[in-house]
Amino acid sequence: MRERANSAWRALIGGMLTTGLFALPASAQDAAPAPTAAPAALPPDGPRPPVALGIGPWRYDSSAGPIDVKVITRQLDHPWALAFLPDGSTLVTERSGRLRIIRNGTLDPVAIAGLPPINPTSIGGLYDIAIDPDFANNRRIYLSYVKPDPQNHDQTTVAVMSAIYDGGMALSDVKDIFVADAWFGARPWPARCCGQGPGWGSWGGRILFGPDGKLFITVGDRNYGEMAQQPDGDFGKILRINPDGSIPADNPFVGQPGWNPQIWTLGHRNPLGLAFHPQTGQLWESEFGPRGGDELNIIEKGQNYGWISVTQGQHYDGTPAQGIREVAGMTDPVIAFGPPSVNPGDLAWYDGAMFPAWQGSLFMPSFTEGLMRITLDAAGKANVAEHLIEDLKQRLRAVSVAPDGSLYVITDEERGTVLRISKRP
Amino acid sequence: MRERANSAWRALIGGMLTTGLFALPASAQDAAPAPTAAPAALPPDGPRPPVALGIGPWRYDSSAGPIDVKVITRQLDHPWALAFLPDGSTLVTERSGRLRIIRNGTLDPVAIAGLPPINPTSIGGLYDIAIDPDFANNRRIYLSYVKPDPQNHDQTTVAVMSAIYDGGMALSDVKDIFVADAWFGARPWPARCCGQGPGWGSWGGRILFGPDGKLFITVGDRNYGEMAQQPDGDFGKILRINPDGSIPADNPFVGQPGWNPQIWTLGHRNPLGLAFHPQTGQLWESEFGPRGGDELNIIEKGQNYGWISVTQGQHYDGTPAQGIREVAGMTDPVIAFGPPSVNPGDLAWYDGAMFPAWQGSLFMPSFTEGLMRITLDAAGKANVAEHLIEDLKQRLRAVSVAPDGSLYVITDEERGTVLRISKRP
Repeated sequence: MRERANSAWRALIGGMLTTGLFALPASAQDAAPAPTAAPAALPPDGPRPPVALGIGPWRYDSSAGPIDVKVITRQLDHPWALAFLPDGSTLVTERSGRLRIIRNGTLDPVAIAGLPPINPTSIGGLYDIAIDPDFANNRRIYLSYVKPDPQNHDQTTVAVMSAIYDGGMALSDVKDIFVADAWFGARPWPARCCGQGPGWGSWGGRILFGPDGKLFITVGDRNYGEMAQQPDGDFGKILRINPDGSIPADNPFVGQPGWNPQIWTLGHRNPLGLAFHPQTGQLWESEFGPRGGDELNIIEKGQNYGWISVTQGQHYDGTPAQGIREVAGMTDPVIAFGPPSVNPGDLAWYDGAMFPAWQGSLFMPSFTEGLMRITLDAAGKANVAEHLIEDLKQRLRAVSVAPDGSLYVITDEERGTVLRISKRP
Repeated sequence: MRERANSAWRALIGGMLTTGLFALPASAQDAAPAPTAAPAALPPDGPRPPVALGIGPWRYDSSAGPIDVKVITRQLDHPWALAFLPDGSTLVTERSGRLRIIRNGTLDPVAIAGLPPINPTSIGGLYDIAIDPDFANNRRIYLSYVKPDPQNHDQTTVAVMSAIYDGGMALSDVKDIFVADAWFGARPWPARCCGQGPGWGSWGGRILFGPDGKLFITVGDRNYGEMAQQPDGDFGKILRINPDGSIPADNPFVGQPGWNPQIWTLGHRNPLGLAFHPQTGQLWESEFGPRGGDELNIIEKGQNYGWISVTQGQHYDGTPAQGIREVAGMTDPVIAFGPPSVNPGDLAWYDGAMFPAWQGSLFMPSFTEGLMRITLDAAGKANVAEHLIEDLKQRLRAVSVAPDGSLYVITDEERGTVLRISKRP
């Protein structure tokens, strides 16, 4: 990974700090002022203030030749994920709790109705979209979100709803197919090690269908990293379920006493990206770590990825990590980023037709270093080969390969956008 | 009305211009950049950029003695209305389409689910709240909103839904009790006089129960002011219906051929405030006019308030008004404001216990001149007596008198707030 200037604009964005400035929970927000101008000098670990995006389009010379970057839509409120539907329309989630649709390149001003109660506290809210492999027949979609405990809305967990979307104005047959254990977040918070952040945060929330037709769900450690090593809880895990919510019999811990049978892997902090390699079928994952501990992982059934015991990052209170790498029983990341952290978003392996030079590349959006293009060398080692649209200084949350091979990138901003990267004609 | 400096910060805010900058419709927003810093010199009619609100509380000396102004909650997305429930909680609408609740002074992070599709284009969206006079028994509330035509979301109208709210996380039994005629807004727009604004805008949207148990609804002229004088359309009217949506037999135009029977008064541009005088029972109304044509009116059954023929404001294209005042058959405003316009919000007559000196005052929030206190002199003439919290430079959308006699003021900002004005202890 190339050397990077540690400027204020590229300062590490701690999840807690980002959260604290831009999306406080109800209990805290009432004491906080609206953000004003950036302070004259940001501390090294301070959050980066939002940078307004110009009109575009922008032109670049890339490793795949000249490219255009165009705004498909703007004024989305912290968009988090998008999904292409067979009819050419595109669903987009806004973290604040709206499901939007883009048709023929135009954002419908009307949000799709029918969502259940969602808690958008902090970095929580409406998250990811997965399209049923049999969507053409059953019109079913899946949405992950931060679900509030009806009895106490500060208590939340990650849930996945299933719904029918017929292309119109409202979802129907909306039902939870999965609700992670356990409610968490209301004070008092348990004693936790290592300077971990508040009880609101680190939800994970990515969902992705595998080639096997199973639904993979990431659940963050909720800033209670000790739980990521506990076999009887969903925090800090990647889960695998059937689309109806039942548990596949071939999950690694099925039948093992004391283990949640939905667990596929454990030892994760905040897993924010998932993508299956189109050739190898391997599941790649991006994960938001503590300072300098962001990770790119290959997820293998039943493995333990180390958190909170093993990390290449620095705990926020300075506590030394128990292990850094090559610890028995723990799987190391393919790449550990930083410091400073890059705050990785969702992943996409490129297999489109538009950019032949990028086939076999993995795209990883970041908050601080643009859209990173990662390649595998002959020995299979992953390297960051290119940083796209870094100069736009947007917080990139997700990237998806469109059916035509162009790349759609989501900027996770208060006036968030969908950008399209295409070959310059 | 006292003389006011015509500075850039107090520049007239044209509805169209405000709209254009801060909340573009889907068809226009994709060509517009995110707002950046204010231009060095604003044109006289330009919109005022948002001014960040500090932490507070703020202390003032007012005509009612020392007062405190405190932020009850912030980070609301363009809040538009609030309503106090008997259990002490407070409902708040966000124009973007969320219904929120404040309990014990804390905003619930989870929006209340169950709203139908809403179009928040431009200054449209979720609007006002009315509590059923029999709420204690039927738990029914009413919400006005901009409803999209299912066939074409750029076509909208004002509608009022009724729903049961039991204090929990979702509405139930949600149904439209009224949908104004007609769908309007998609291009091509009809030829219209006088430099009127775009087909998205000027919806009105206030609802208020009268002492007679009827529901009054304001419908703006949709920037098609010619319709405000048409008897067979709802644009530019104040309407009166029963809570079940039926038409009261004593409405002024019932049975008159060619008239919509729901019409109570006609000739309005964008009526944004309604309040019944607690002693006289008169219905007072605030209305957003063209440049310098904002109005405070007393609404009397069957009267015609003149728009688009008669206005004390200036048409945007410079066309002279057909009439200014004292035109036969037209009712003049009690006060016409400006130029520059003040952009008036919802009204409240003060009859609380906390501020005896303010009893008999009418509060009118504005975008440019703070919270205006209007008094009636011995001859019944209305005068602006005081401008509260003007220095905060917030766009004030509504004011409500709380059960304890304090004033709740809503700031219609991207990071909108509810402010409470109370007597300093």
